[in-house]
Amino acid sequence: MKNYPYPMLQKPNFIWTRDTNRTSDIKVHEWIETAVDSAPDFSQYDVTILGAPLSKSSISTSAASENPDAMRDAWKYFGTYNLDEDIDLTQLKAIDLGNVRQHVTDIAYSQQKIREAMAAMRSHHPHTLPITMGGDHSITAELVKGWKEVHPDETIGILQLDTHFDLRSLDDLGPANGTPIRNLIESGTVEGKHVHNIGLQGFFNARELKDYADAVGLHYTTLKQARKKGIAVTIQEALDQLNKQVDTIYLTVDMDVLDIIHGPATPAAAPGGMYSAELFEAVQTAGEFPKVKAVDIVCLDPRKDIGQITVKNAVYTMLSFLIGFCKR
Amino acid sequence: MKNYPYPMLQKPNFIWTRDTNRTSDIKVHEWIETAVDSAPDFSQYDVTILGAPLSKSSISTSAASENPDAMRDAWKYFGTYNLDEDIDLTQLKAIDLGNVRQHVTDIAYSQQKIREAMAAMRSHHPHTLPITMGGDHSITAELVKGWKEVHPDETIGILQLDTHFDLRSLDDLGPANGTPIRNLIESGTVEGKHVHNIGLQGFFNARELKDYADAVGLHYTTLKQARKKGIAVTIQEALDQLNKQVDTIYLTVDMDVLDIIHGPATPAAAPGGMYSAELFEAVQTAGEFPKVKAVDIVCLDPRKDIGQITVKNAVYTMLSFLIGFCKR
Amino acid sequence: MKNYPYPMLQKPNFIWTRDTNRTSDIKVHEWIETAVDSAPDFSQYDVTILGAPLSKSSISTSAASENPDAMRDAWKYFGTYNLDEDIDLTQLKAIDLGNVRQHVTDIAYSQQKIREAMAAMRSHHPHTLPITMGGDHSITAELVKGWKEVHPDETIGILQLDTHFDLRSLDDLGPANGTPIRNLIESGTVEGKHVHNIGLQGFFNARELKDYADAVGLHYTTLKQARKKGIAVTIQEALDQLNKQVDTIYLTVDMDVLDIIHGPATPAAAPGGMYSAELFEAVQTAGEFPKVKAVDIVCLDPRKDIGQITVKNAVYTMLSFLIGFCKR
Amino acid sequence: MKNYPYPMLQKPNFIWTRDTNRTSDIKVHEWIETAVDSAPDFSQYDVTILGAPLSKSSISTSAASENPDAMRDAWKYFGTYNLDEDIDLTQLKAIDLGNVRQHVTDIAYSQQKIREAMAAMRSHHPHTLPITMGGDHSITAELVKGWKEVHPDETIGILQLDTHFDLRSLDDLGPANGTPIRNLIESGTVEGKHVHNIGLQGFFNARELKDYADAVGLHYTTLKQARKKGIAVTIQEALDQLNKQVDTIYLTVDMDVLDIIHGPATPAAAPGGMYSAELFEAVQTAGEFPKVKAVDIVCLDPRKDIGQITVKNAVYTMLSFLIGFCKR
Amino acid sequence: MKNYPYPMLQKPNFIWTRDTNRTSDIKVHEWIETAVDSAPDFSQYDVTILGAPLSKSSISTSAASENPDAMRDAWKYFGTYNLDEDIDLTQLKAIDLGNVRQHVTDIAYSQQKIREAMAAMRSHHPHTLPITMGGDHSITAELVKGWKEVHPDETIGILQLDTHFDLRSLDDLGPANGTPIRNLIESGTVEGKHVHNIGLQGFFNARELKDYADAVGLHYTTLKQARKKGIAVTIQEALDQLNKQVDTIYLTVDMDVLDIIHGPATPAAAPGGMYSAELFEAVQTAGEFPKVKAVDIVCLDPRKDIGQITVKNAVYTMLSFLIGFCKR
Amino acid sequence: MKNYPYPMLQKPNFIWTRDTNRTSDIKVHEWIETAVDSAPDFSQYDVTILGAPLSKSSISTSAASENPDAMRDAWKYFGTYNLDEDIDLTQLKAIDLGNVRQHVTDIAYSQQKIREAMAAMRSHHPHTLPITMGGDHSITAELVKGWKEVHPDETIGILQLDTHFDLRSLDDLGPANGTPIRNLIESGTVEGKHVHNIGLQGFFNARELKDYADAVGLHYTTLKQARKKGIAVTIQEALDQLNKQVDTIYLTVDMDVLDIIHGPATPAAAPGGMYSAELFEAVQTAGEFPKVKAVDIVCLDPRKDIGQITVKNAVYTMLSFLIGFCKR
Repeated sequence: MKNYPYPMLQKPNFIWTRDTNRTSDIKVHEWIETAVDSAPDFSQYDVTILGAPLSKSSISTSAASENPDAMRDAWKYFGTYNLDEDIDLTQLKAIDLGNVRQHVTDIAYSQQKIREAMAAMRSHHPHTLPITMGGDHSITAELVKGWKEVHPDETIGILQLDTHFDLRSLDDLGPANGTPIRNLIESGTVEGKHVHNIGLQGFFNARELKDYADAVGLHYTTLKQARKKGIAVTIQEALDQLNKQVDTIYLTVDMDVLDIIHGPATPAAAPGGMYSAELFEAVQTAGEFPKVKAVDIVCLDPRKDIGQITVKNAVYTMLSFLIGFCKR
Repeated sequence: MKNYPYPMLQKPNFIWTRDTNRTSDIKVHEWIETAVDSAPDFSQYDVTILGAPLSKSSISTSAASENPDAMRDAWKYFGTYNLDEDIDLTQLKAIDLGNVRQHVTDIAYSQQKIREAMAAMRSHHPHTLPITMGGDHSITAELVKGWKEVHPDETIGILQLDTHFDLRSLDDLGPANGTPIRNLIESGTVEGKHVHNIGLQGFFNARELKDYADAVGLHYTTLKQARKKGIAVTIQEALDQLNKQVDTIYLTVDMDVLDIIHGPATPAAAPGGMYSAELFEAVQTAGEFPKVKAVDIVCLDPRKDIGQITVKNAVYTMLSFLIGFCKR
Repeated sequence: MKNYPYPMLQKPNFIWTRDTNRTSDIKVHEWIETAVDSAPDFSQYDVTILGAPLSKSSISTSAASENPDAMRDAWKYFGTYNLDEDIDLTQLKAIDLGNVRQHVTDIAYSQQKIREAMAAMRSHHPHTLPITMGGDHSITAELVKGWKEVHPDETIGILQLDTHFDLRSLDDLGPANGTPIRNLIESGTVEGKHVHNIGLQGFFNARELKDYADAVGLHYTTLKQARKKGIAVTIQEALDQLNKQVDTIYLTVDMDVLDIIHGPATPAAAPGGMYSAELFEAVQTAGEFPKVKAVDIVCLDPRKDIGQITVKNAVYTMLSFLIGFCKR
Repeated sequence: MKNYPYPMLQKPNFIWTRDTNRTSDIKVHEWIETAVDSAPDFSQYDVTILGAPLSKSSISTSAASENPDAMRDAWKYFGTYNLDEDIDLTQLKAIDLGNVRQHVTDIAYSQQKIREAMAAMRSHHPHTLPITMGGDHSITAELVKGWKEVHPDETIGILQLDTHFDLRSLDDLGPANGTPIRNLIESGTVEGKHVHNIGLQGFFNARELKDYADAVGLHYTTLKQARKKGIAVTIQEALDQLNKQVDTIYLTVDMDVLDIIHGPATPAAAPGGMYSAELFEAVQTAGEFPKVKAVDIVCLDPRKDIGQITVKNAVYTMLSFLIGFCKR
Repeated sequence: MKNYPYPMLQKPNFIWTRDTNRTSDIKVHEWIETAVDSAPDFSQYDVTILGAPLSKSSISTSAASENPDAMRDAWKYFGTYNLDEDIDLTQLKAIDLGNVRQHVTDIAYSQQKIREAMAAMRSHHPHTLPITMGGDHSITAELVKGWKEVHPDETIGILQLDTHFDLRSLDDLGPANGTPIRNLIESGTVEGKHVHNIGLQGFFNARELKDYADAVGLHYTTLKQARKKGIAVTIQEALDQLNKQVDTIYLTVDMDVLDIIHGPATPAAAPGGMYSAELFEAVQTAGEFPKVKAVDIVCLDPRKDIGQITVKNAVYTMLSFLIGFCKR
Repeated sequence: MKNYPYPMLQKPNFIWTRDTNRTSDIKVHEWIETAVDSAPDFSQYDVTILGAPLSKSSISTSAASENPDAMRDAWKYFGTYNLDEDIDLTQLKAIDLGNVRQHVTDIAYSQQKIREAMAAMRSHHPHTLPITMGGDHSITAELVKGWKEVHPDETIGILQLDTHFDLRSLDDLGPANGTPIRNLIESGTVEGKHVHNIGLQGFFNARELKDYADAVGLHYTTLKQARKKGIAVTIQEALDQLNKQVDTIYLTVDMDVLDIIHGPATPAAAPGGMYSAELFEAVQTAGEFPKVKAVDIVCLDPRKDIGQITVKNAVYTMLSFLIGFCKR
């Protein structure tokens, strides 16, 4: 594969398409992987799928690095057609670029490669929407920085679905899964007032983090507040507000926003969180919004999963976003 | 046990009754099995319980064949008295006929025995309501055909609670767990317009299956639609509509209609599904409806269960139906 | 530790406080245990935490004896600050007294030690609110009796969140986890009409137990009834009613009140139960009520837990009560 | 079942026999349960099987009370014919008497019933060999005492296969699973010099217990010593020595004598223990010895089991003993 | 892939080769899959790997159908170089032909396709040695029959490593996992005297099966007998004897020959079996023997596996055979 | 704790001693933790225990960082007295120094702290023997380097019990768990000829690694070779040879040297490995050897453990070493 624009990617890329080798009249179409022999014309694709298998940057041990492949496996349990919306995702052209290469003992190097992967995508085929399967939440800082490198004049907003602020101190932890939003704010990549966090609840954020959020003007809506107003309405209002202020909205979904019964496989799985139906509605709403141009799904450790509940919820989340995307 | 009308049944039959061998003033009554020594007078029973332990006909490996015995075990965690409705199920006379004999390598033979068991029940004591514990969903086709053999002039309608249409091609799969409704339609046993499927959702049916459903006039209500209208109302409307068109309504509950958190033990467990409280309300509503004359509960693989969640939900489902039945 | 007033306690006591040994500007404070070298001045504490590790008195085998330590472990996943209410629990002074000593083969002796522990707390520092982590539900009878020994003239009411009446016969079972409320009524410690049970549902109580409840004037609200009225409203009404009749309200939370998906680790885990968000709301409401002066959380067997779901829910329950307590 | 001699037994009794309802020429015979309608002539049986489901007397929580039924279930995976020895166990007449009734909160009462069950067996049909499935090791003290009550003049010896001495203090623990041998010695039921413990190893006995063993003249052979000499030879020598001194040899097998890989389901599972093949050889050797007149298998908690390894090893152990018994 | 000789195969074929895309001086070579674009020249290969994913023919539910892919996954944990023998398997040319297509509800059709796959291999490239990953033991009957169809004049012998005779009645079970050896004898494919079964033990064969084995002159050596003589010596003697009588020796390894601690993932996992080191030695010995021309590994249900123990043992077994093969 | 010599340690230190607060005549002594309030006189201790909780340097995700605390928990299942050798470990004075502080995202920093901890121990109390609980195998390189920093003139030899050479390229992986021995050789800390690796086997080392080992004169004995000669003899010979060449022998035990059935919780768990009894004998033999002055136990990921098998084996390994140490 000469002249391939992705030297930082670990695996050859695949096109996700429908299975056509059934012989009966009623075929059951499923996503299948088709190997791509040489560098395709990426500009033809609506969506790219990328794996960012980094979780050494997690506060507690996490195998979120195994999530991209776990999601690919679980994907096979899903069809392409959504009955609720009568939409078939095969109307999109999507390509799986594989995983970013990572180093065993050099976390900074691994994060740089993730940043480079986003920069390469923005340079080579800026009209495709990238969906990144983490990895832990530290990757969000790298991906947004990679975007910013290619589009330095764009103002970027963040819609964050999360139980946590992720505003912990870089001095304590470095670029870890507890610090990405603070990382983006302190590095000047994103302004605090352009971040909307929806889903916070319970006993999982220190008071000092809320004080910091207030100080930088970060917007947040607790889960209880969002439920009172309606999840979709809350999302829509946050997007409408960002729409007036930023050029690009980046959607980051930390799977620990789910209640522990829906997301047992997150390192910080906790009671009191969002229900999966609420999350699906939230991301589909975001998917419909034209200015949402990139997505990531992070902090899912498949080794902690129970009966594949969390991984299947992650795939459903991704596909729900794409259903929204089809409705744009 | 001479002259026993059930040569196709594998196990001796039991009468489920209340435990009376406590000695204190406040007894804790529970379902207990009492062995039946000889063929009882079946005509005295309101309800029969039958096990149809077939799951070799499943698309993926399933131990749903072990479900009837798993449900019998879990039954012991339930009492006979329902506090919500102030009804004690001991007012019903119920008998467990045991499991249908199955062959190790001949699926067609096994399915024939299930058909014969239903036919025998309809012939010998037609006034009892049969509840069948599957097995996979392929048994529904056999049970309805067995009914039809004895009552060829009856028009049969189906109320299906399922995440799937189960309309896949017999040419592809044969009489498998993905094809029972199509099997019944193509064999002329049931008309498409007499099938009401409630609970469909998400990415779990190919577009072609919806097209087929539309072509044969099958009625379906997605879970989202049913929630908007109310689950009980949706069920009631489907029953009222069938009431005008058919002689008998057969209720089939595919446990995968539940969200994966409530039904982890189904081969196709998926997010986005029905909550258990919704299912209990749906079946109790159906139980109250006089024309609902047979029930099955299928596609529960106990080996996949987590903390007995699914099996206990299946028993609760069955007992909720019986509570409804008591209210007729 | 001379002159220590708790000879019946197994472990040295700890003060739960905030971690302060971080060095960066934004500290992440967590509950930490600090060993107490000598008997502190208990009168300064708002809340005591006690472990009552008895579950040999359970009908089926239960390791609820391991729950106090399991809750202490899971506690570390929680912070002190509650974002929903903007309250930091460090405003309370709390002390963990450790676990009550238990005997290997003498259940009556073990129960006596639990009774003595409550009596000692009431004698030595009656202004602190005791929270007891069970153990099975038999401990509630001992704890309330211990209270009554010190305050013989007080009228005690009970707010019980439970799937069961716990009114089974002492003649059958002795002081077991199925009998504590009956134990209190028959011993004259609490009147039946001063017990409010909220959360009953399904097939998990014999009709005779309801008849007994009716006979002694016990109040109960099924989960379905409570949901119709609103959980918080239901709790509030029960508390208001008790407020007129009793001096002290004792809150007992049997974790099996939760649906099996939220509470898989209870010996009697069952479908159809309360959602965790409902339980948190219920106990926070009770926490706000001045006359609620003691709490226990029982019947959680950590060995049955799945992904720590139940234990984390138990800690969230306890902390939600304390948030309510802060709002008094 | 009038005039039934076993009022202390919980379940009706069964005869374990061979399945004969296959129709082909080569039948696959398996143990099956056949219900016994009335009290049979017990004197015709060679062997009785008894369940003693007590484990509330265990130091740590144990569900060994569930072991008798777990062993009955696992038994179905075994045939009656032993290929190694060319012996079919159907040459023995065996009857399963069911489980001893137990009390929920009165351990002393439960132990008394176990003692009574052994006494009843010795009184009603002293020519059968009783095999008891525990329960924890505390039952051994009761069973031997029950024997002694009926045969006060007999001298009883004990062959113990165990990782532990089980000589801990009754003052500390009462009649627990750590004290049965000391219980028998201190009560004068058995003399210390008539106990042979084989299988001790590692770090699992306090030095004081060895000192006690030495003081009372108890014989012990560590696993390493037994391996040097040969397991069968070691057993044989112990039996030969006891043969000269006692009238009856009681064999007690604590399943924790196995290495943790063979016996993960024991409360004290430890590395460094016996291999299952060694245990089978040991008990078969004991089974051949005429003076071995009773057996128990204890301290197996099926809830801790992994892939049924321990329960299957327990059944294999019991059947190996019976193979030896056939060779007498 | 036109003119591809394997219409019955489900997946495209792969060449297993060494990874070469490391850049440092010391490369870590691993087996990798390389997609084969068109039908290769099969005659160049020493070994073919085939998956026969059939387990609907099992007596109890088995997911042995998932074993071929499970073994392919576990293979990645193994290198190509064997340190004990200083042999690198890359000296062999091996190709993975993928899995045989199977039908959902027609077991006979599925078995026919397996037979056809072996026949095709024998026809198209008879100089390669086929290794088949089952599936359950019923596939052995099909594979040997497929061989016989192409080589009708060859006399075939069988070396079977198994806890069971697999001689149960076809009248009872049909072509199931309990009947393959009897199937081959009764169909005249193999003579009873040309079968050597090594590893039988315990209580897992009915006496009638031994009588049948004796009647047809089948050779068997129990595990205890083999251990006395030495496993390798026993294997060698069986091979030497067969060498004089047959043209081809087919090696079939039923993974349940292993003790349950080494093979928990077999449907009939039992104590008392072979240790993995003994199995590896046995198959390596067989691998060295020139007349051993085909191998299968069967009855491994990966869903039952614990920590991948059994699947890794199966791969080690297969690779040990290949090490022997290299030493020919 | 002012003037405390261990600023890099995360937790306060404990003295492991015997429990004395039992009241009966026969006490059951167990290891207990006693908090140390201020810096003790370390020179009085024979042995220090240190936790090095680093596993971000592992090739695959590993929670070996949780092993030190897991071993401390499992330790409580062990007594101090060893019956086989009649030695009580309380004759040693041992102190647990706690865990080395680690950084979330800076692996090099974390490794430096481990190096510093060893250097501090060698400086402050060189007469104590340090035992380090890893962490992954990368820590061995740091610990030996820390030793060498304080004792630059000492020649250090390594006795390695391992399935792997751990000689992979630093260029590829950096200071990872696959490279420690090469790290030590290339950094000039240890000479290749002063390394003895015992336990290698199977398919788990690339041929190039063996070539490298040969090139640098590293000594290795495969498990099969060691078994032929005897494990203890093999160890003794390696020690005797090192004794002539080096000043200090460092023993490193990679738990993956165990067969997967004894060590399921290692990232590279594999069949064909050492039995636990062999490992215990090996380390006890090494413990007796005076020049063995430091030990580590690495690559145990407790999250992968099954029934605590591996963690208990690790503790047994450590205690067996100490028994040997007592015999010096």
